[in-house]
Amino acid sequence: MNPEKTLTTLRDELRKFAQERDWQPFHTPKNLAMALIVEAAELVEHFQWLSPEQSASLDEKTQEEVAQELADIQIYLARLADVLGVDLMEAAYRKLAINAAKYPVETARGSAAKYRPNRL
Amino acid sequence: MNPEKTLTTLRDELRKFAQERDWQPFHTPKNLAMALIVEAAELVEHFQWLSPEQSASLDEKTQEEVAQELADIQIYLARLADVLGVDLMEAAYRKLAINAAKYPVETARGSAAKYRPNRL
Amino acid sequence: MNPEKTLTTLRDELRKFAQERDWQPFHTPKNLAMALIVEAAELVEHFQWLSPEQSASLDEKTQEEVAQELADIQIYLARLADVLGVDLMEAAYRKLAINAAKYPVETARGSAAKYRPNRL
Amino acid sequence: MNPEKTLTTLRDELRKFAQERDWQPFHTPKNLAMALIVEAAELVEHFQWLSPEQSASLDEKTQEEVAQELADIQIYLARLADVLGVDLMEAAYRKLAINAAKYPVETARGSAAKYRPNRL
Repeated sequence: MNPEKTLTTLRDELRKFAQERDWQPFHTPKNLAMALIVEAAELVEHFQWLSPEQSASLDEKTQEEVAQELADIQIYLARLADVLGVDLMEAAYRKLAINAAKYPVETARGSAAKYRPNRL
Repeated sequence: MNPEKTLTTLRDELRKFAQERDWQPFHTPKNLAMALIVEAAELVEHFQWLSPEQSASLDEKTQEEVAQELADIQIYLARLADVLGVDLMEAAYRKLAINAAKYPVETARGSAAKYRPNRL
Repeated sequence: MNPEKTLTTLRDELRKFAQERDWQPFHTPKNLAMALIVEAAELVEHFQWLSPEQSASLDEKTQEEVAQELADIQIYLARLADVLGVDLMEAAYRKLAINAAKYPVETARGSAAKYRPNRL
Repeated sequence: MNPEKTLTTLRDELRKFAQERDWQPFHTPKNLAMALIVEAAELVEHFQWLSPEQSASLDEKTQEEVAQELADIQIYLARLADVLGVDLMEAAYRKLAINAAKYPVETARGSAAKYRPNRL
């Protein structure tokens, strides 16, 4: 990964992208959340009829399409975080600490049903 | 943003998190895509009855809840990209270049209906 | 509405449709739930950049596209209910009674914040 | 299924439900589409860590929860169709005819990759 390309630089690029096109009025949190879930569904669509095993060994064409869907989600996520004034990386690390406390290693091993709602 | 916390370090943390709990078998792309859209919907839920204007000025409690939803999405997105072998930041920048070519500044200004499907 | 076309006849048509094409193996509840949310997102996509007011006065072309998305959701919903052995209409009426008890008319009027999570 | 409980009577019940609570202002198509996808995600959540086989043999508690999620989706779908002036059953049957023409029995059998985007 290019060390100069980070979530911070992506955020700035997206801000400029929206400004240059006068698209800020459309970028309300409500609208961006909708756009984000639409992109998430385009990702899900690639996997809907695949077995779990098939989903782990995509052909080259699907792999590239899926990578572009992941990119779209990252883009809307970074843009929405910016509009809301949320530091995405800080929030992610903070959530990770919460999850680590919630699912201690010793008790969370394997498939215990009580941990089903979450796996990260 | 802490310069030492990046998508790369987050990816590594998540990989370790899953390994320590023996959760890799659950982390198929199919399952992770489902988990990601579930988190995206929890984000959408916060905005569903708000006007676009209200969605842009959240109270403190909702702001924190929304930040945690954004974090969850980022976490699943980074984990899914890792499982698929996709470099998320590289993919995002590549997609940004595609979008810039697709929506040139001169013609994309404002609300032209033909640009409606996408706003980033 | 044609009195002979009901959720029951739709269910039977879909069952036959799947059988004739040998598609039952793909119609696991997991897969059908994914297909259903993908259709729901295609619906959301039509509204993502519209104001709430615009969403209530669609042009003819969008209206027809939206009607087809609603149809897709109804189709997957009826098929999934059948595969799971759920009587959709019975479940809907049962849920309606639960909601009526949860949101009594006298206290639920207007926009009380405590009723925000649900509006039906 | 009770022959007197149909999508038409459900639509009328929901209309009354919203009127009695003064909730119509919240029931814009944009908002209802968001609510619908949130319910669809609550359905998906039940299946996210299950294998396709497990998703087809739910325990009694999960079966009841899933039935209620299906009900919620049906409720929002019927309400949204009403607000948009769409006859849901007529639209579903019309879409079914389109799909039958698109996926003829002879060529659609089994898992042909070209039919992957849709399975109904």
